[in-house]
Amino acid sequence: MKSLERIGISLEPKLLKDFDKLIAKEGYQNRSEAVRDLIRKELSKEKLDKPDTPAIAVVSLVYDHHSTGLMKKLTNLQHSNLLSTISSMHIHLSHHDCMELIALKGKAKDINNVAQQILSQKGVKLGNVNLIPVK
Amino acid sequence: MKSLERIGISLEPKLLKDFDKLIAKEGYQNRSEAVRDLIRKELSKEKLDKPDTPAIAVVSLVYDHHSTGLMKKLTNLQHSNLLSTISSMHIHLSHHDCMELIALKGKAKDINNVAQQILSQKGVKLGNVNLIPVK
Amino acid sequence: MKSLERIGISLEPKLLKDFDKLIAKEGYQNRSEAVRDLIRKELSKEKLDKPDTPAIAVVSLVYDHHSTGLMKKLTNLQHSNLLSTISSMHIHLSHHDCMELIALKGKAKDINNVAQQILSQKGVKLGNVNLIPVK
Amino acid sequence: MKSLERIGISLEPKLLKDFDKLIAKEGYQNRSEAVRDLIRKELSKEKLDKPDTPAIAVVSLVYDHHSTGLMKKLTNLQHSNLLSTISSMHIHLSHHDCMELIALKGKAKDINNVAQQILSQKGVKLGNVNLIPVK
Repeated sequence: MKSLERIGISLEPKLLKDFDKLIAKEGYQNRSEAVRDLIRKELSKEKLDKPDTPAIAVVSLVYDHHSTGLMKKLTNLQHSNLLSTISSMHIHLSHHDCMELIALKGKAKDINNVAQQILSQKGVKLGNVNLIPVK
Repeated sequence: MKSLERIGISLEPKLLKDFDKLIAKEGYQNRSEAVRDLIRKELSKEKLDKPDTPAIAVVSLVYDHHSTGLMKKLTNLQHSNLLSTISSMHIHLSHHDCMELIALKGKAKDINNVAQQILSQKGVKLGNVNLIPVK
Repeated sequence: MKSLERIGISLEPKLLKDFDKLIAKEGYQNRSEAVRDLIRKELSKEKLDKPDTPAIAVVSLVYDHHSTGLMKKLTNLQHSNLLSTISSMHIHLSHHDCMELIALKGKAKDINNVAQQILSQKGVKLGNVNLIPVK
Repeated sequence: MKSLERIGISLEPKLLKDFDKLIAKEGYQNRSEAVRDLIRKELSKEKLDKPDTPAIAVVSLVYDHHSTGLMKKLTNLQHSNLLSTISSMHIHLSHHDCMELIALKGKAKDINNVAQQILSQKGVKLGNVNLIPVK
């Protein structure tokens, strides 16, 4: 475990009280952990502004598995982007619908493009890309 | 000026270094101010989850002022929601387009509805609502 | 396959041209599919405003697997919320870091709370919740 | 008024019904207007990905006007970025707090930087930047 540095932060009593209430509700065990998470989130937003940032894209999509040819196309898209596809998970939602989570790895811009191609397939009903910078 | 409380936060040296670099770029003069802003932003997101939170809505819209009857309708909408409209600002963008910023005050849910009605008018080309909790 | 209804939409030539360019870039094969996706996205945003909407939460988190006790805690959290956890996927990112994707099913509000508890664990470095309404 | 083009869109009856319900609630008078707005929103998101896009930034900030030197600093910042500042609007919220809306015009990246500098001033309690592409 790496050693930690300690810094002092001053803030208004009311702000501190509200913050303590919020992080208790969210399940944090101490303020340091909660502040670290806020800082990491802010840094990660900044990193993703640069198109070359190494990142993971989590693509979530809902589709009707009766949709002609869609599953084949999704598989093809993942294979033709083999270098960037890490793995995928399949979840049955209802008689018709299933959800697929696909993890892609690469430069933020590139994997965002692949994700967009996946989501634009006919038969994909709902989808979303979540980019997370790595390193 | 109210007195401030001081708390200690421990974090990894690398995280601290990245944070210091980010806030220097953004123009912060010290870490306390930057951390306070992160905390306030987080609290404000939580407050807006409750529909009754007192808030300000900043409605920004771009429209073509040649659009028949639009300016009249916008004025009427603001007057018929007189209690919630605070004031508005008009900006000329080009020969055709102008921008209007309208500030509304009230319960988050109510002013969001008024904002939606404004943005759905024929002739409004682009628009956006930004909710800020007050108190 | 269900039969489709056909509606007519009128729009400015410039707007149509820009839209055609955008959807070609994104890989859409026709306008109907692209417009349907825009509509579905808009509807899904509205549904998620209601806390009782049945939804899937895709929780993505990056953590250091050397972090003491974290993997155990994550497993416990998933088991104690057994009814809402569907399945999870584990991805190795580097010597230290791994990523976990956890799919939760339930009312939007409830699974958002569980997700928050997962993300607030000590050792979780980055995380994100993506809610998708189902049905 | 420019003439409009007319295109046909096919979609599932259930999706159309839900869409009609949503846009009626939001105050739209016909589907064309609602679809045009969805398309414009999508195009505007894409434009803002490019740092050189000409844009307007609407900066909303809440601050305590007793905060020493803040109003002077805000004015200075606006003047030293004279080329990009269009105008601003001041709103009294309470005995302590006021809100200021500042409209900036320029390249998306540049005005975002100025906005960031405004928001990082000591005494600014809450703030937000909304970028809208022009032309």
